[in-house]
Amino acid sequence: MNGCSRTARAIRATAALAVGLLGWAGTGWAEMVNVTLTAKVTVVQVAKDDEREAWTFNGNIPGPVIRVKEGDVVQFTLKNEADRVHSIDFHAARTPWDRHFQGIGSGTETTFTWKAEYPGVFYYHCGTDPMIQHIANGMFGAVIVEPRHPLVKADREYVIVQSEIYPSPFDVDAMMAGKPKLVVFNGRANRYLEEPLEAKPGELIRLHVVNAGPNHFSAFHVIGAVFDRVYASGNPKNVEYGIQTYTLPPGGGATFDLIIPEEGVYPIVTHSLQDALTGAIGTIRVASEEKMAAVAAEAGGVGSASETGARTPGVIGQVER
Amino acid sequence: MNGCSRTARAIRATAALAVGLLGWAGTGWAEMVNVTLTAKVTVVQVAKDDEREAWTFNGNIPGPVIRVKEGDVVQFTLKNEADRVHSIDFHAARTPWDRHFQGIGSGTETTFTWKAEYPGVFYYHCGTDPMIQHIANGMFGAVIVEPRHPLVKADREYVIVQSEIYPSPFDVDAMMAGKPKLVVFNGRANRYLEEPLEAKPGELIRLHVVNAGPNHFSAFHVIGAVFDRVYASGNPKNVEYGIQTYTLPPGGGATFDLIIPEEGVYPIVTHSLQDALTGAIGTIRVASEEKMAAVAAEAGGVGSASETGARTPGVIGQVER
Amino acid sequence: MNGCSRTARAIRATAALAVGLLGWAGTGWAEMVNVTLTAKVTVVQVAKDDEREAWTFNGNIPGPVIRVKEGDVVQFTLKNEADRVHSIDFHAARTPWDRHFQGIGSGTETTFTWKAEYPGVFYYHCGTDPMIQHIANGMFGAVIVEPRHPLVKADREYVIVQSEIYPSPFDVDAMMAGKPKLVVFNGRANRYLEEPLEAKPGELIRLHVVNAGPNHFSAFHVIGAVFDRVYASGNPKNVEYGIQTYTLPPGGGATFDLIIPEEGVYPIVTHSLQDALTGAIGTIRVASEEKMAAVAAEAGGVGSASETGARTPGVIGQVER
Repeated sequence: MNGCSRTARAIRATAALAVGLLGWAGTGWAEMVNVTLTAKVTVVQVAKDDEREAWTFNGNIPGPVIRVKEGDVVQFTLKNEADRVHSIDFHAARTPWDRHFQGIGSGTETTFTWKAEYPGVFYYHCGTDPMIQHIANGMFGAVIVEPRHPLVKADREYVIVQSEIYPSPFDVDAMMAGKPKLVVFNGRANRYLEEPLEAKPGELIRLHVVNAGPNHFSAFHVIGAVFDRVYASGNPKNVEYGIQTYTLPPGGGATFDLIIPEEGVYPIVTHSLQDALTGAIGTIRVASEEKMAAVAAEAGGVGSASETGARTPGVIGQVER
Repeated sequence: MNGCSRTARAIRATAALAVGLLGWAGTGWAEMVNVTLTAKVTVVQVAKDDEREAWTFNGNIPGPVIRVKEGDVVQFTLKNEADRVHSIDFHAARTPWDRHFQGIGSGTETTFTWKAEYPGVFYYHCGTDPMIQHIANGMFGAVIVEPRHPLVKADREYVIVQSEIYPSPFDVDAMMAGKPKLVVFNGRANRYLEEPLEAKPGELIRLHVVNAGPNHFSAFHVIGAVFDRVYASGNPKNVEYGIQTYTLPPGGGATFDLIIPEEGVYPIVTHSLQDALTGAIGTIRVASEEKMAAVAAEAGGVGSASETGARTPGVIGQVER
Repeated sequence: MNGCSRTARAIRATAALAVGLLGWAGTGWAEMVNVTLTAKVTVVQVAKDDEREAWTFNGNIPGPVIRVKEGDVVQFTLKNEADRVHSIDFHAARTPWDRHFQGIGSGTETTFTWKAEYPGVFYYHCGTDPMIQHIANGMFGAVIVEPRHPLVKADREYVIVQSEIYPSPFDVDAMMAGKPKLVVFNGRANRYLEEPLEAKPGELIRLHVVNAGPNHFSAFHVIGAVFDRVYASGNPKNVEYGIQTYTLPPGGGATFDLIIPEEGVYPIVTHSLQDALTGAIGTIRVASEEKMAAVAAEAGGVGSASETGARTPGVIGQVER
């Protein structure tokens, strides 16, 4: 399976997954993978009462999840369909900033390759000056590099990107003061209060979490649960056990494994509560298959099977296996 | 020894320990333990010149230390003798938020059980909306879950809970802005400048530290000492060695082992100095037994033996062995 | 080689290294090492357009790097040639605060010994009240304690100290509010944009990083690179692998190993961007030997060999091997 077909498959996946998925094949090892991100001006809803022009990769905040395997070579293309200079910065890549992370003008594109040498969950973002504004306005996402010696298989994976949203896309002073209007998971305040993440009792849930910042540290926590394992930067070599709350610096990430034995609702927060209470709060709804189906039927079919095999299509951050 | 008698014993301990102690038996394994917390409005002194109405568990900030053993089942009762809705959130528990962490009205009570599956030091707090206010006003404490494969025995243990106190209990705006008036250890600014924690030269001192927040990260440090070992979330599997300063996110905790060879005074701080200098500073006074007795005699008997066998009665945060 | 001659050698090194170097011998183990720091009022340039009176150790911000070996005994002398009381606080030392970290008056000096028992990279600073002001005004530096079981030899080492600079040296209110004017690496905003750190492709680069604060947490990151290993507090026993961004609390430190295969420019930042964009940003310029020589010739000889054998004299933070 070559990179092109993998990308094609990923693009199908994007339709079903609110956080799309680029580059994932599922079998084989160390391939060439084509990934394209397109900088766009997009109208997005960052809160119930706050619709605004944002700067995005591929039309969503966050941009698509890029999932590759340790050793893969990413043939990356950045297209700029937006109204100003933009760029890319992959935390997963070892590659020169002055060659590959430079801005490109509106209407242009650039291509370079990088190799996914470190497994884990990594941040990507636009690094164009002022970087704080390009991040605050939505230009970021997550790369998952599947480890060569894989972690135990999870039953269910989600990707969550925390970020700050400022009063206006042009209020750089508020950004530099670190005074966001909203702090959010996957681009919208209280998103997963309205559309809970889902799991079944006893499943191994894996959360890949990135803190996009641009300023605040996150104190990532799930209420009513304990992280069985936390992997710093998502690297299987870095394990901490039985963690209640974990510090994620802006620009950092970690992978969290947890098992929730009982049905119920389990909120996800940053425990720095000034940020949770402006929007960085969501829930995991743990229910048996029957209960899930009943809820889905009521909600008009969300939760039914899809061509991509994703378990909970419609939920931002779900990772296809 | 059943849970009831354990609780009775713990209540005796509470009289002598500023941070009381619920649920600790000391022998046997995997018991049922009764623990009751009572939400109360209490007048507390949060600084020399700041006496105010606070919201407490059992009449103190922080609430009692709850000490159980890995595998114990906690039969928990929350009583609400306060003037508004309150609730409980145990970070040590895997249990559904929508069933067990919900608010109960004034004059009511609720009971549920949870199992202490993860060893370590864990935060507990009221989670009633707005949670930031219920925490800022004092409704929190620490759970210690003694590991089944225990750590090397410490000679002396203390529990320290860092928290922020805001200008007024009703100034939620200041809380949401993260602008506390005071940051404190165990409920009162500069408390352990006035009543130092105590240890003897060469003792293995174990500090169980929780950061209650609700907002600030802590940079926990002891001046003139190095942490021989730090256990993230207090779990014996997570060890870092020779640490000078450790990040504790709000909602997080860790256990710190240190040995201080020489007599003297060793300040405890968060090294985020804007917080230390509003009150999150204390001291450990290291002195030989003779010197301690002399100091105690001068202070009018504080430090003398008590019925509970606690080594330094009168000192908040001391854990009974 | 006794401590005196080691110190003499270190003082020679200081001339060539912007962050000087005290106490390093290079051979033998567990020696007595003489180290002297002198508190001074010094005019320093903290940004292109901001020259001001600062409080320093030995006339620079940060003060000299003190490099000793695990087991060494440091015979330390503090001289106060400044205009007010100053003191020292070594995070590497276990020694009583009330005896050895106390202030000494202008025109006086004090001496004490401490043993370097924990390997790693440690903060030192003035602890005189108000400590937040003495740190904000420049009185700090780093101690490297070379481990007895050494890490793999690095090809190149740098020491970086992050700190906050406030609008005025006397604006303690701004310090207590945590509102710096600048956040800097090694004392000057954007210093390593103008004078990049240097390395050759494929070298093992070791960064010893301390966060002096006094308030902000750092999210340490190198753009276009991944930390192959991070050692918490610089201790070889604490290893995390493949880390993108690492939380350094104020008052904390860590050692970072990274290898950059390709020539180019790699920015160093705290990814808490409000701090990077006021000055906590620099670059590593990775170039082959020939390219480095060409650049140096253009710049007027910076980069030529020196009597101390330091690889990149003139660069603040370079550690002599």
